[in-house]
Amino acid sequence: MTHDEGAAPRFDAAFAAQLAELFRWRRDVRRFRSDPVESRLVGELVGLATLAPSVGHSQPWRFVTVESEARRAAVIGSFERCNADALASYEGEAAVLYARLKLAGLRAAPVQLAVFCDIETEVGRGLGRMTMPETLCYSVVAAIQNLALAARARGLGVGWVSILDPREIAALLDVPAAWKLVAYLCIGYPQEEHLDPELERYGWQARLPNGEILRR
Amino acid sequence: MTHDEGAAPRFDAAFAAQLAELFRWRRDVRRFRSDPVESRLVGELVGLATLAPSVGHSQPWRFVTVESEARRAAVIGSFERCNADALASYEGEAAVLYARLKLAGLRAAPVQLAVFCDIETEVGRGLGRMTMPETLCYSVVAAIQNLALAARARGLGVGWVSILDPREIAALLDVPAAWKLVAYLCIGYPQEEHLDPELERYGWQARLPNGEILRR
Repeated sequence: MTHDEGAAPRFDAAFAAQLAELFRWRRDVRRFRSDPVESRLVGELVGLATLAPSVGHSQPWRFVTVESEARRAAVIGSFERCNADALASYEGEAAVLYARLKLAGLRAAPVQLAVFCDIETEVGRGLGRMTMPETLCYSVVAAIQNLALAARARGLGVGWVSILDPREIAALLDVPAAWKLVAYLCIGYPQEEHLDPELERYGWQARLPNGEILRR
Repeated sequence: MTHDEGAAPRFDAAFAAQLAELFRWRRDVRRFRSDPVESRLVGELVGLATLAPSVGHSQPWRFVTVESEARRAAVIGSFERCNADALASYEGEAAVLYARLKLAGLRAAPVQLAVFCDIETEVGRGLGRMTMPETLCYSVVAAIQNLALAARARGLGVGWVSILDPREIAALLDVPAAWKLVAYLCIGYPQEEHLDPELERYGWQARLPNGEILRR
């Protein structure tokens, strides 16, 4: 990277190659070591997340750290109920395989962050989201992707848990009514590193060839 | 970065610092130079986008390049109608300021990509999205954030246009009924580089202090 006084940085090919490696090695993590994560580091990740774009510069992301044993136990309860319902929807071989998958690291992750979108924010004055209001929550997702990449660059893993009742989690964390749950993140140092997602490794779903996803 | 045979790479502090610079200097771009972008490069960006996480490994992202003059003109028509409606919703000083903002680079961007989510995909067998089905489209947003970062690392700019009628764009591009428009992206070399978003620079919306967005 070169960076003249007052000028925009230029990123070189070596950096672009490292960035591609980062994309390749970022995984959804469900197996965490018990080592604590410094709270300074969590604040840094949240700060980097907020450098994401947001529709109309609305910055609708809201982060809540979940620390008490009682709250964490309630989140696990929501996960277990939703996961049992999900398991019951599969039959035969799929049910057997589903039951074996590890889909969340809620018991071990030292840091847990609920991420919400303030769907009634007036920040940004509604710009850019009249015809596609869902872009407000999309902005929060862009922030989460920044956070996951910045975490991986520091050797940290992030697991996005979506097998939860979003209204239950919002009530549990006592957030304003206009905050919609976008993600529940488990963060910590991973027990293992893989190039392939867990769902690929255990035969649930293979990666699609890219030819199928780009058309003219 | 160090990368032993068969082992996961370790990213060093210098890389993490460059990544933070990348986040800081990624902007939504609306002013493009006319220089063409190699189609090989577009394919590379789409490939890097697909390294994003997706719920249940569903990989629901679908990219459509928009190349013909007729289609581009129709997209501009949709933008102009939606933008006129948006302008009409503001009054006084806000209306004057809104009218001056440049919100899309649809006439100049050499590459234009409509990005959809296949909301009926069976890939991933529904895993992870029973209670939060919106995570399917969120996966597409994570891919778009990868694409925007990879583009910026190559000196390319990306502008996300959301002031469009999503059903009109889907009809125009003749995509399957289950494909929901997530974003319309303008891609090209930017005319200018800034650290602050256009909406901040022209006084529409300031950046929020981080203290407001993280709570315990």
